[in-house]
Amino acid sequence: MPSEFALIRRHFTRPARHTDLAVGDDAALIRPGPGMQLAISTDMLVAGTHFFADTDPEGLGWKTLAVNVSDLAAMGATPRWVVLAACLPAADEAWIARFAQGFFACAEAFDIDVIGGDTTRGPLNLCPTIFGEIPLGQAITRGGARPGDELWVSGTPGRAALGLAHLQGSLALDGAFRDSCLKALQRPQPRVALGLGLRGIASAMLDVSDGLLGDLSHILEHSGVGAEVRTAALPLAALAAGCGDPARALQACTAGGDDYELLFTAPAPCHDALLALGERLGLPLHPIGRITAHSGVLLLCHPDGRQESPRALGYDHFGRNA
Amino acid sequence: MPSEFALIRRHFTRPARHTDLAVGDDAALIRPGPGMQLAISTDMLVAGTHFFADTDPEGLGWKTLAVNVSDLAAMGATPRWVVLAACLPAADEAWIARFAQGFFACAEAFDIDVIGGDTTRGPLNLCPTIFGEIPLGQAITRGGARPGDELWVSGTPGRAALGLAHLQGSLALDGAFRDSCLKALQRPQPRVALGLGLRGIASAMLDVSDGLLGDLSHILEHSGVGAEVRTAALPLAALAAGCGDPARALQACTAGGDDYELLFTAPAPCHDALLALGERLGLPLHPIGRITAHSGVLLLCHPDGRQESPRALGYDHFGRNA
Repeated sequence: MPSEFALIRRHFTRPARHTDLAVGDDAALIRPGPGMQLAISTDMLVAGTHFFADTDPEGLGWKTLAVNVSDLAAMGATPRWVVLAACLPAADEAWIARFAQGFFACAEAFDIDVIGGDTTRGPLNLCPTIFGEIPLGQAITRGGARPGDELWVSGTPGRAALGLAHLQGSLALDGAFRDSCLKALQRPQPRVALGLGLRGIASAMLDVSDGLLGDLSHILEHSGVGAEVRTAALPLAALAAGCGDPARALQACTAGGDDYELLFTAPAPCHDALLALGERLGLPLHPIGRITAHSGVLLLCHPDGRQESPRALGYDHFGRNA
Repeated sequence: MPSEFALIRRHFTRPARHTDLAVGDDAALIRPGPGMQLAISTDMLVAGTHFFADTDPEGLGWKTLAVNVSDLAAMGATPRWVVLAACLPAADEAWIARFAQGFFACAEAFDIDVIGGDTTRGPLNLCPTIFGEIPLGQAITRGGARPGDELWVSGTPGRAALGLAHLQGSLALDGAFRDSCLKALQRPQPRVALGLGLRGIASAMLDVSDGLLGDLSHILEHSGVGAEVRTAALPLAALAAGCGDPARALQACTAGGDDYELLFTAPAPCHDALLALGERLGLPLHPIGRITAHSGVLLLCHPDGRQESPRALGYDHFGRNA
């Protein structure tokens, strides 16, 4: 029976397109283009914490890379290269082959070279580190939001949380809505084209991985500003219709993680350009609130005029990483 | 009690010296110098596989980074930046503080910026990814060895294996020799200055992490050559004197891993320049054999004229990764 080393080599060695030296030596060699900064992000996905140990390996392979791609999208960077360190409990070729299939499907979808890695035996743990390029000075960080900026989110955050609740049995979804929620959870689409389109427009940005309001708090912290989120402007209609529970839809949209939509701020005069960008990309962009000068103050504004702090609403994840 | 996120932030955020954007955003931003290639390596260290779970965290922190630095040294690269993903079983501040102390001691010793990472809860697993710079075209890969080249190794490989045997109770060492073996095992010194000094001289190189002969087989495979190793030329005297067993010294030197010395080939006319380089660095360099045209054939040559294949000697690790 081949060792996991042989299996990894068999399934993980594919031609690299923009790499000087890929898998097989002590280190890989790459060259960012002239005038480019390199954006780097690492994520560790652990069985039992980030995914069920019996998760379909093909979907897991896609997601392992996609969540890292999303980190680069959130900087406005073009993903280019990835290394993958993996700790595997056994040399299970069928599992490795399906995992590689999903991982490379994502790599090919975003033109990313897999340039190296490391394999070891032990509790299942997947740790990609991803590299992307961005013209010097054009990265969109968390720290550039200014009072008066509009706050935007892409797509329909909340589907992944509802999909997870469905899998865990606390919610019963069906039909196309169920499928869309499971797809959001299992095969998230990193918003690379949107990230690139927001260069020179967005003043601050991150991806919604831990929940919209919790992630928004990072922008407030890094930018030294506050925000008001208009609950009536959140993209809740499809969620509420699909799960039949408006309160749960609100909770999923504002506190559910794992959708990897982009949350960003932009000067108010960019409003129409952003709507046009969303149209061009076939990805709805929603203006959901505005940035204020009240540093660290985050308010949910309801249609009846009430304003609430999400902290008072007992959001579990709010500020977890803050 | 602070979360592990807060603890990591407290102990792992230190000023970065040659980084555009370090810890805290979706990605870090760096800029290799003009005309530089970027060398990238990732390693995953797993409790129970690569180290004992009760290993002193300060030494573990040093070694976690040092083994990655060694991969860059083995390319002739200058280490510059590192990201660290860590899976920790508990938010144990004393452990994290000591681990960070060792990790940053190594980072400072080699002027490396710690620019990002990820933390999660689960089985202990440490995964650094390291980046270094090397002038375009000057990287020393595994593939450049040519027949007639001399084969060299730095230092005294084998100490780490004897130190491990001492800790495991299969060997009793004492005094300064025991200390030197434990230091080799627990606080390996990546040979960065040697790697830089070998640019333009060495034709192929790697670091001895899995055992000298097993690692040598990678050079043979990548370069399409063979090698003869003269056992009388191996740096065995100190090992044999220290452990009182010449056969065990030979085994440790040729098949023991974890020393992170450099194994390299160089054209024969470089012989004197290499001895002078070793002198200048205070690090003995040993010419231990030569490269032959017999692709894939590795022979141990004894003083009495006998020649053996290491495979026939039953070396466990020989070809493990090959």
